[in-house]
Amino acid sequence: MSTERIFNFSAGPSMLPLPVLEEAAAEMTNYRGTGMSVMEMSHRGKVYDAIFEETKADLKKVMSIPDTHEILFMGGGATMQFSAIPLNLIGKTGKADYALTGNFSTLAMKEAKKYGEISIACSSEDRNHTYIPAQKDIKVSDDASYFHYCANNTIYGTEWQYVPETGNIPLVCDMSSNILSAPLDVSKFGLIYGGVQKNMAPAGAAVVIIDKELAGNEHPLTPKLLSYKVMIDTNSMQNTPPTYTIYMLGLVLKWLEKQGGVEAMAKLKAERAKYLYDVLDDSKMFIGCAEKESRSHMNVTFRTTSEELDAQFIKEAKAAGFDTLKGHRAVGGMRASIYNAMPIEGTKQLAAFMREFEAKNS
Amino acid sequence: MSTERIFNFSAGPSMLPLPVLEEAAAEMTNYRGTGMSVMEMSHRGKVYDAIFEETKADLKKVMSIPDTHEILFMGGGATMQFSAIPLNLIGKTGKADYALTGNFSTLAMKEAKKYGEISIACSSEDRNHTYIPAQKDIKVSDDASYFHYCANNTIYGTEWQYVPETGNIPLVCDMSSNILSAPLDVSKFGLIYGGVQKNMAPAGAAVVIIDKELAGNEHPLTPKLLSYKVMIDTNSMQNTPPTYTIYMLGLVLKWLEKQGGVEAMAKLKAERAKYLYDVLDDSKMFIGCAEKESRSHMNVTFRTTSEELDAQFIKEAKAAGFDTLKGHRAVGGMRASIYNAMPIEGTKQLAAFMREFEAKNS
Repeated sequence: MSTERIFNFSAGPSMLPLPVLEEAAAEMTNYRGTGMSVMEMSHRGKVYDAIFEETKADLKKVMSIPDTHEILFMGGGATMQFSAIPLNLIGKTGKADYALTGNFSTLAMKEAKKYGEISIACSSEDRNHTYIPAQKDIKVSDDASYFHYCANNTIYGTEWQYVPETGNIPLVCDMSSNILSAPLDVSKFGLIYGGVQKNMAPAGAAVVIIDKELAGNEHPLTPKLLSYKVMIDTNSMQNTPPTYTIYMLGLVLKWLEKQGGVEAMAKLKAERAKYLYDVLDDSKMFIGCAEKESRSHMNVTFRTTSEELDAQFIKEAKAAGFDTLKGHRAVGGMRASIYNAMPIEGTKQLAAFMREFEAKNS
Repeated sequence: MSTERIFNFSAGPSMLPLPVLEEAAAEMTNYRGTGMSVMEMSHRGKVYDAIFEETKADLKKVMSIPDTHEILFMGGGATMQFSAIPLNLIGKTGKADYALTGNFSTLAMKEAKKYGEISIACSSEDRNHTYIPAQKDIKVSDDASYFHYCANNTIYGTEWQYVPETGNIPLVCDMSSNILSAPLDVSKFGLIYGGVQKNMAPAGAAVVIIDKELAGNEHPLTPKLLSYKVMIDTNSMQNTPPTYTIYMLGLVLKWLEKQGGVEAMAKLKAERAKYLYDVLDDSKMFIGCAEKESRSHMNVTFRTTSEELDAQFIKEAKAAGFDTLKGHRAVGGMRASIYNAMPIEGTKQLAAFMREFEAKNS
C-alpha cells in the first residue's frame, strides 16, 4: 500500500518520513527481539531507557544544544506551554513582552495575561499578519521577565528571517512549525519549545529546550507536571512520559541525520518552497498572501482571483493527489504546508499542477 | 516476529492486544486507502474526525456512559489530572476528601493541597497499604467539593471491591489501572479518569469522564487546556489532541467489544488472577502482599521467604519468558500486572512456573 501514498500538505499533524513509518510498522509487535512493542514497555525499563536517552542525545547533537540547556519532553503540545511559560517564568518581574505575528502568538499572549502583565512588543495585526516586524520596530521592556515570539506562523505563512535582539531579556520562542528545519544558535535562547506534530513526531507532546538557570521560580499553583524544575529534576520522568511519541521522534532524528542534518534541511526547505514561490511570482492567477521578505519556507499561503476558483483549485488538486490544501479560515485561499518530511517532488509536482491549472482556466 | 512475543507483566505501559498491534502496523503507512498514516492526518479533517467520533461513541457504548457525562481526551496522563481535578472542582467549598490507599492516591492528595484544604477520609497507611478500608471506616465531610479515591493500587496490589457511598458529595475516581475491566455504573460518579497506558492505549493521554454539571467553576489561573469547561466546549479539540493515541484506543475498544465487552473482561480478570492467587494460597514459599479481601485482579503482588530468592525467581522467570516481574521498591518482591490484554495463558503458565520453582527450591 505504501506506494499509493499521496502528497499531504496538512499544517499539522503532517507528513512523516516514509522510511520512519515503515520502520515503526516493522517493529510494532516486536521491538528488536524484545518480544514486545515499544508501546508496551515500562518507561523505567532498560530497553526503553536506552531509546529515551538516545533520542535526547540525538536531539542535542542535531540541534547543537549547549550543556547550559536541558531537553524536556512534556505532554499536551505547544498550547500547554502557553500556560507553562508564564507560570514558570513571569514571576521574576511579573511582566513579559509578546510579539504578535499571528494566531498562535496571540493565543500565547492571551493565556499569559492570566499570570502577569503583558506588553505587546510588536504586532503585524495592522496588515493582517502578512509580514514580520523589523528589529527596529520591536519595543523590548527593561523589566520583562522574557520576550516571547513565534518563529513561524503556520496560518499566515510568514517566518521570522532573523532572531530578534532583546539584550539581557531571555528569548522564548515557539518553534512548533520550523524546529529542525535549519541550523540555530540555541545559546541565544532562554527557552525554545514546540509541539512535535509538524517536524518531529506524531501529535501529543511538546519538546522544551530550556536554559536551566531559568527554572525554579514557578508560581506556587503551577501543576506539578508543568514545573520545569520538576521536569528537569526527574529527567521528564515524573510520571509516564509519552513513550511512543518519543520513540518516533528518535526514528525521525536518525532519518534526519542520514539526510545531512539541519544544514541539509535548510537547503531542502529553500528549494522546496522555491518551486511554489516561483509560480506565485510568475502567475497572474495565483497571489501570495504573505509579503515577500517575510515568506515562510514551511507554509506557503496563496489564493486565486476568486473564492470560486479557490474552491475549484482545491477540489481538482485533491483529485490529483495533493491533499489538505485548503487555507485556514482566518486567511482563506490555499495553504501548502511543506515540512521536513515533504519530498521535493511534492512541491515540484504541485507547482507544475498550478501552472497547468492557470493555463487551462485563463 | 510476532510469534516470539513474551508475557510482559509490566505495570504500565503494558501489554496491548496483539491483533490491535498487528492492525496498527498493517495500516501504518496508508490508513484504509487514504494514502497517509493516521499519525499524519489533520485532526480537523473528515477522516480523522470519523476515527475520533467513533472512538468516543465506542467508549460511551462499552462503558454505558450516560448522556449526563462527557468524555474528554487530555494530554499528560493521570498525574496531570491530579492538578486539574482540584483546579476545576475544589472551588465550590475550598475543601475535598481524599482516601489514601497507596502511592498514587497519596500523590493526588499532595497535589490537591496546593489548591485547597484536604481531609483524609480514610487511610490504609497503618498496614502499609495492604488493604482497602471498609465503608464504615470512611469519614465523608459535609462540605467537601468532592471525594477522591484510586480504584486500584498498582504498587500494593489492592483493589476497591465496592464503590464508596458518599451521599451527595461527588465521587472522583482514578481508574487508570482497572478501567474497562468490569461493568460499572458511571452515573454514580462525578468524574472518572485514567491514564491510558494500562487498559486503553499507548502512554501519553488521559481519558476523563465528567458529569457536565461539575464543569465551569475552575480557578482563574487554571491553564486553558486543563479547564474541563474548555475541553467540553471544544470536544477535546482546543488544540491538536494526541491523535494517534486516540486511534489506538479506538482499535482496543473494537477488540474489547469482540471479546464480549466489559462483562467478558470481568470474567477473564477473575480467572486470570485466580491462577496466581491459588499458588499464593497453596504455597509455603510465595506470600501474597495484599490482604485477601482487598486483592487486585490487575496487579498481583507477592514475595518469597527471602530477598535472595526473590531475585533468583525474577531472573529465572525472565529467562523463561515472563518479563518485568520485579515489584515496586515501596513493596519489594514481585508484581505481576495482568491487564485486559494479558492472555489467560500468561498467568496459567506463570502459575505453573511458580509451582515448579517452589518444588525445585524447597
